[in-house]
Amino acid sequence: MAGTDGTRTSWEGGPAIVLVEPQLGENIGMASRAMLNCGLTDMRVVNPRQPFPNDYAMAAAVGSDRVLTSAGVFGSVREAITDLQHVFAATARPRDMVKPVVTPREAARLMREAAARGERCGILFGRERTGLHNDELMLAQTIITAPLNPAYSSLNIAQAVLLLAWEHLMAADATPVRDLPLGGNRLANGEELANFFDHLARDLDEVEFFRAEHMRPVMWQNLRNIFLRAELTEQEVRTLHGALARLSGRRQGRQN
Amino acid sequence: MAGTDGTRTSWEGGPAIVLVEPQLGENIGMASRAMLNCGLTDMRVVNPRQPFPNDYAMAAAVGSDRVLTSAGVFGSVREAITDLQHVFAATARPRDMVKPVVTPREAARLMREAAARGERCGILFGRERTGLHNDELMLAQTIITAPLNPAYSSLNIAQAVLLLAWEHLMAADATPVRDLPLGGNRLANGEELANFFDHLARDLDEVEFFRAEHMRPVMWQNLRNIFLRAELTEQEVRTLHGALARLSGRRQGRQN
Repeated sequence: MAGTDGTRTSWEGGPAIVLVEPQLGENIGMASRAMLNCGLTDMRVVNPRQPFPNDYAMAAAVGSDRVLTSAGVFGSVREAITDLQHVFAATARPRDMVKPVVTPREAARLMREAAARGERCGILFGRERTGLHNDELMLAQTIITAPLNPAYSSLNIAQAVLLLAWEHLMAADATPVRDLPLGGNRLANGEELANFFDHLARDLDEVEFFRAEHMRPVMWQNLRNIFLRAELTEQEVRTLHGALARLSGRRQGRQN
Repeated sequence: MAGTDGTRTSWEGGPAIVLVEPQLGENIGMASRAMLNCGLTDMRVVNPRQPFPNDYAMAAAVGSDRVLTSAGVFGSVREAITDLQHVFAATARPRDMVKPVVTPREAARLMREAAARGERCGILFGRERTGLHNDELMLAQTIITAPLNPAYSSLNIAQAVLLLAWEHLMAADATPVRDLPLGGNRLANGEELANFFDHLARDLDEVEFFRAEHMRPVMWQNLRNIFLRAELTEQEVRTLHGALARLSGRRQGRQN
């Protein structure tokens, strides 16, 4: 699949998203958006309650149509999972089964590990109102339960798909957690910063900003820190030189 | 807010969710669901394009109505953020601003740290079609950009709110990543397991399952490992004893 739809090769091997008897086309379309947002493309639909994919689903899919048109349609969960080694079920923590329950983040880690061994995974999502039946849960090795607000934990299907697809994406994400985009510019270097600080100190001294000499070191240190925290670019240092020159000029009546 | 709506005290101090000129009531209602799912309750709406909260929003809110009815409505972003020390903007990476860009996970970490210092945070979410304007981005210290599929990165507003609210929730979550619920039972102990393995070995020896004696150690080790991996409960060990006794009984014609 990689390449043809612009997704990265590293996204291959992502889990199949198995929607069991989904009722509302809009939910299916929103689920396909959430999948493609996170680089997943293998949707499987078990016994859809409406013709599939219908107009409501296609309208809600907004550009992720190919996830819907390439989706597999199956008569039962058992048929939908024949090629999968690991079946997870996204559901509230079951009360009457001794079956491992993992967080979405742990599930994502397990699925990445399985994919690295060449094993295929899938996640079952239940019906809008009645969820997954017990005989369907029996087909899954592992339950995924999101530790949401216990007073309000019911998730829409598309939201549930998004959470799990997002965690799967993040489990292999290498994006720097923080970045400062410089827009073609570069950070100012030590010389440029020193020149600006010289300019600033000179202009402040001219107007006797540092009234008491014994206060000067601390005030000057604080002022410098403001500009150092800002991580100035070379371009911004030039802008500040300009603003400073203009402020000093206006005060001295050198404005035309 | 804690207590009255059943959310945990530890969720207080969560970020304000600021929706700028949202158009569709359904998106607002879905956003309120996502917020309450993740324990957030401070919604602020800037210049809603329809009466707020309207019937579409209330219908989509499905039980999270109190987030809508307690939401603040403001005439501008500037007015909506007066009490906030940290303003984040959820948007695609801007091309023409030197402003830090963080991942949702890093933003969540920063917001938790700020809250621990008693500082208030908010996240701006833009219009459905046109996002945030530059003069609104100027009010934010930090950009949050989700590293989604670059070929399909546009998120619905409610989905964007869910991702950020979820990351905020997870940043302080202490749920065990894996749990095996035992339903009132307990794991079998060493003696119970040993008794079951003795029973199994005896019955298999009776039917000469281990045909070649030199194969016995490896086959027996493999069989034991199946049951050890299963993390049997005391109840399940009794069930297995029963199944084994019944299988042996039927074979020996001792069935009535």
